[in-house]
Amino acid sequence: MDNVPPGEHIDMDKLLAFMARRAPKKDKTSTPRREKDIPQILSGFLNGKTTGTPLTAMIQNTDTRSKDYSQMARLARPGHADYTGAERYRGFNDERGGGHFSGRLTAPLCFAGAVAGQILERRGIYTGSHILEIHGIKDNAFDSVTVNRGDILTVREKYFPVIDDEKGVKMVADIEKAAACHDSVGGVVECVCINVPAGIGSPMFDGLENTIAKLIFGIPAVKGLEFGVGFNVAKMLGSQDNDEFYVNEMGRVVTRTNNHGGILGGISSGMPITLRVAFKPTASISKEQNTVDMKNLTNEKMVIKGRHDPCIVPRAVPCVEACVNIAVLNHMLQYPNF
Amino acid sequence: MDNVPPGEHIDMDKLLAFMARRAPKKDKTSTPRREKDIPQILSGFLNGKTTGTPLTAMIQNTDTRSKDYSQMARLARPGHADYTGAERYRGFNDERGGGHFSGRLTAPLCFAGAVAGQILERRGIYTGSHILEIHGIKDNAFDSVTVNRGDILTVREKYFPVIDDEKGVKMVADIEKAAACHDSVGGVVECVCINVPAGIGSPMFDGLENTIAKLIFGIPAVKGLEFGVGFNVAKMLGSQDNDEFYVNEMGRVVTRTNNHGGILGGISSGMPITLRVAFKPTASISKEQNTVDMKNLTNEKMVIKGRHDPCIVPRAVPCVEACVNIAVLNHMLQYPNF
Amino acid sequence: MDNVPPGEHIDMDKLLAFMARRAPKKDKTSTPRREKDIPQILSGFLNGKTTGTPLTAMIQNTDTRSKDYSQMARLARPGHADYTGAERYRGFNDERGGGHFSGRLTAPLCFAGAVAGQILERRGIYTGSHILEIHGIKDNAFDSVTVNRGDILTVREKYFPVIDDEKGVKMVADIEKAAACHDSVGGVVECVCINVPAGIGSPMFDGLENTIAKLIFGIPAVKGLEFGVGFNVAKMLGSQDNDEFYVNEMGRVVTRTNNHGGILGGISSGMPITLRVAFKPTASISKEQNTVDMKNLTNEKMVIKGRHDPCIVPRAVPCVEACVNIAVLNHMLQYPNF
Amino acid sequence: MDNVPPGEHIDMDKLLAFMARRAPKKDKTSTPRREKDIPQILSGFLNGKTTGTPLTAMIQNTDTRSKDYSQMARLARPGHADYTGAERYRGFNDERGGGHFSGRLTAPLCFAGAVAGQILERRGIYTGSHILEIHGIKDNAFDSVTVNRGDILTVREKYFPVIDDEKGVKMVADIEKAAACHDSVGGVVECVCINVPAGIGSPMFDGLENTIAKLIFGIPAVKGLEFGVGFNVAKMLGSQDNDEFYVNEMGRVVTRTNNHGGILGGISSGMPITLRVAFKPTASISKEQNTVDMKNLTNEKMVIKGRHDPCIVPRAVPCVEACVNIAVLNHMLQYPNF
Repeated sequence: MDNVPPGEHIDMDKLLAFMARRAPKKDKTSTPRREKDIPQILSGFLNGKTTGTPLTAMIQNTDTRSKDYSQMARLARPGHADYTGAERYRGFNDERGGGHFSGRLTAPLCFAGAVAGQILERRGIYTGSHILEIHGIKDNAFDSVTVNRGDILTVREKYFPVIDDEKGVKMVADIEKAAACHDSVGGVVECVCINVPAGIGSPMFDGLENTIAKLIFGIPAVKGLEFGVGFNVAKMLGSQDNDEFYVNEMGRVVTRTNNHGGILGGISSGMPITLRVAFKPTASISKEQNTVDMKNLTNEKMVIKGRHDPCIVPRAVPCVEACVNIAVLNHMLQYPNF
Repeated sequence: MDNVPPGEHIDMDKLLAFMARRAPKKDKTSTPRREKDIPQILSGFLNGKTTGTPLTAMIQNTDTRSKDYSQMARLARPGHADYTGAERYRGFNDERGGGHFSGRLTAPLCFAGAVAGQILERRGIYTGSHILEIHGIKDNAFDSVTVNRGDILTVREKYFPVIDDEKGVKMVADIEKAAACHDSVGGVVECVCINVPAGIGSPMFDGLENTIAKLIFGIPAVKGLEFGVGFNVAKMLGSQDNDEFYVNEMGRVVTRTNNHGGILGGISSGMPITLRVAFKPTASISKEQNTVDMKNLTNEKMVIKGRHDPCIVPRAVPCVEACVNIAVLNHMLQYPNF
Repeated sequence: MDNVPPGEHIDMDKLLAFMARRAPKKDKTSTPRREKDIPQILSGFLNGKTTGTPLTAMIQNTDTRSKDYSQMARLARPGHADYTGAERYRGFNDERGGGHFSGRLTAPLCFAGAVAGQILERRGIYTGSHILEIHGIKDNAFDSVTVNRGDILTVREKYFPVIDDEKGVKMVADIEKAAACHDSVGGVVECVCINVPAGIGSPMFDGLENTIAKLIFGIPAVKGLEFGVGFNVAKMLGSQDNDEFYVNEMGRVVTRTNNHGGILGGISSGMPITLRVAFKPTASISKEQNTVDMKNLTNEKMVIKGRHDPCIVPRAVPCVEACVNIAVLNHMLQYPNF
Repeated sequence: MDNVPPGEHIDMDKLLAFMARRAPKKDKTSTPRREKDIPQILSGFLNGKTTGTPLTAMIQNTDTRSKDYSQMARLARPGHADYTGAERYRGFNDERGGGHFSGRLTAPLCFAGAVAGQILERRGIYTGSHILEIHGIKDNAFDSVTVNRGDILTVREKYFPVIDDEKGVKMVADIEKAAACHDSVGGVVECVCINVPAGIGSPMFDGLENTIAKLIFGIPAVKGLEFGVGFNVAKMLGSQDNDEFYVNEMGRVVTRTNNHGGILGGISSGMPITLRVAFKPTASISKEQNTVDMKNLTNEKMVIKGRHDPCIVPRAVPCVEACVNIAVLNHMLQYPNF
């Protein structure tokens, strides 16, 4: 991480707690792998504080079983980047566990997001995410106008992060059912970021949405991203969608509704930043699938072995927060008097 | 435009035709402004060919009426960046017609996208977009597996770019109705890009989706972006979503379905790249709205004057293509033997 | 220019005066071309102040004689980029007046440098340059410890910017003599920048020296760059070179000598930033020279026609300042409370 | 290292040999520290070949004695970045051994340069450096026109890399004398890079010289950089400096002399790229020096302890090569058919 401000305390317990949210759950909704994601800080950190020079950490994978992946050098797993990676890197890509395409690369993303989050929270800015939907089962959404620190902390601390726990029970049951059928399910994560001051970001290609989008589509399995009311704008009239401004009792300019999701023209409005991210079902399923032998160019059948999550959405929740934290902090650093 | 390959012919008629698709329609679905978007090439072009050094063009606005915008220095138009821009630029932003926030900045975007498109088409790569939805009225989608050059050219050349013209008639009627009510409507644009070879892009943050996303969210009014089946993945099983590979009669590796939208792990698979972009209703409506006086921090009412599109979706169609062309060309330029 | 702070007044008279220093002198030391470098501001400027969005200006060349350059499509002028440009751009480069290789591209550089300079001077930071050497004739150097605003303004305002005018007279005579012999001469420009606060810049590859160097080598004809005592360090002992720190009567940490040139570890020390830039003799000389016909790969002789400066050093003086201004402003913008 | 081409073999013995050239000499010209710079490759490398995804290596410092640096938290070492770093990072910088300012950061630079060099050598491009001057004692220079692979390999393999070993003996004696006097000496490194095809690079700010310069000034202690004849251009006529082109017996366009140093307009000419880099005397000397206590703002005296090189020039030789290798490879990767 470059450009980390100097003198920022990093609370290692909080950092590990953030990363633990991404670790496999200890129930049937996750892979039986036991990844201990203990980041080892190599530079940029001294006496409990950032130095301002690059903050480097290493997370070693202590539980690999590369032979699980041995067939991949030949067979392209459907829904995975085995084929596209082989084309891109002319056959020299690392096929073990996906190599640079592995979901494990979200561990350093969460490290960075956790650090950024601590720096933001010190300035009153909180980011929170939860599972909004899994395989058609929907949780309640955050209230895009009133969502506050308490709402965020409450859902963030849950083992299975949903607002309505009854919906969570149904989701877990659905994931377990898919797992039992050697299948997997997709879903949606909702994220909010509150107390970002108005005036952060830029128009055109370097706005908050652009930066967040560039990062979010770096999380494996993301297929969609929307801000505010998102795709629902396609069904709306301008008079419904426009958020009227008013001066509130604190003398601050705010909007009565928040269809715009806290960003107008690439720049924060001061209202909660809201977004939703769609994740596809885990591509690694243990059902037999048709595919190709990339070396011999023949049609083959394959059954994917190894240990895989039947649904990656629960583990993706902190990853979405991480992207938002990194994006917001990057823009905040250009803010006068940060 | 930097990094344009040298020796590329630019067909000025085709370029102007591309840009004309973004110009206001000459009917009630568009603003009555008559913008003649004639780009004047200033550098990087000689004897009908690119020189390889920066290609610069200027598009002058010949039909401005700045006084239409005079009240904006005080009143923040709902749904616009007047308030966020004033906060960002400490009150010094150019409030005339949105300044750097103006929809007019999609004119240079279309110039760049048209140039990139010509370079790509010379290599067999075609990009096409159409209106998929306006205010809940839906057009047919492209077939994500079989879509071909003919399909693309057919819809691109239409005055009102929909696949099913009957749906187009309904959309036009709906837009006109909204206009008559001093209101506006939103919609969705679908875009495909065919014949991109497999192996273009990169994993993580510099993939095709990331680059496209960063550009797409630079088009004003975009609130959502999805690739392949997009948000529908949230309702799917892995066994439904995964696209099985096979070797086709040409000996090429392809997929039977294209839920992945032509990109896996940030890298092209050789299948059509497919995406959809949600546009909010035009924020400028001539109904009376509540807002604030930014200088005096008082609550006010305003009626937006000036000439505005009741729906910007038809004009956004080439803008989406432009972003995809620019993103794909950028990644293609790193391809060996481009 | 992107990232220009909003609300900065631009004094157009001062800006034109800066650019005029780069214009051809009206005597025999310069080309007889009469370039009127009047920048036309296209965006980012309103009511005399920057808006914070990109500041764009265009400088049209009103006195071109492209036929002067007609032979260059075939013959590679020694010391010019005709051959390297043809190889780089596969024969499609713009050979008229050097195209993107033209010395005229220092006009926009000076525009940008003049704007940056005004923003810096408003914060007490002054940059000044003078001719230190031409064809072996040396001017006095700035005192690297005591140089002040008065010293800078005095030499900047001179028609022929040297500290010791008698040396200037000798230089002019030497340039005129070279011109009379159809030849040209090289030289060195010295530049200082004062009152940059300590703590601006970064270690490694993004330091002040790196940024300045990247820009300086973008000025055509530059062959060398040194900071502080520069190449003389090769002859020194550490005990001679090290600048001892002390706390001065104002309570500020300063150094007694300034061999380091105001930058340590890529970061400003608060002492004057000092550098020297070597410019080669104008490559365009009207003596007959041997060269090649690039199309036919034959050996040929050529006499360069057209109007050329016998020495570009006087006109390069503001270009060096421009680079330093741009580099320092870029780093200053990351400074808390800029 | 990002953008490393896939499928490139890395010869680890050659890589370690390159890095060993940067390690401390086992005689009195170097620090008595015994740094074993064994890079441990963490990603991007499989079965002896690069994968195309980021190549990451870690070099652990196995011989630190942080207490040697304990006084630096208070006292600013003359010629070092202690003071500027403290200002830049508001007192939170890592003062142990210079932290991010440490000369040890040239170890990863050499790792990257060695990898780039192997990729270039596979394509016939060789880079070589030697000590050109130490404390006024000068070695012979490479012949800038005829220098070949043999010349480069011969000097590269020497323990003390000079062309004329008798000069080397004098240099060593001078360094030992400085060391005995608790002092240090500076010098100059000359570097050439041969067989770069014509047409690599770009005009303006992204040329070969700009990229090399940006990297070179990232090596600690660099105070000057010149290409070709460098600062000597200030004493030359255009008719002396211009390198005439001719078609050689192989049918290739070359120049008879190489005053331009292989780069014209930021683009390679096909002639050897030649440059010289000035290094200041090691700032850490064990003589008593005056300085300040940064915390108490008082004037103090200090004697620097710890183990330091009396001259860093011998160890800087591969660092200069590394920068050139990285810069040339970066530009080469944009070359069609690399």
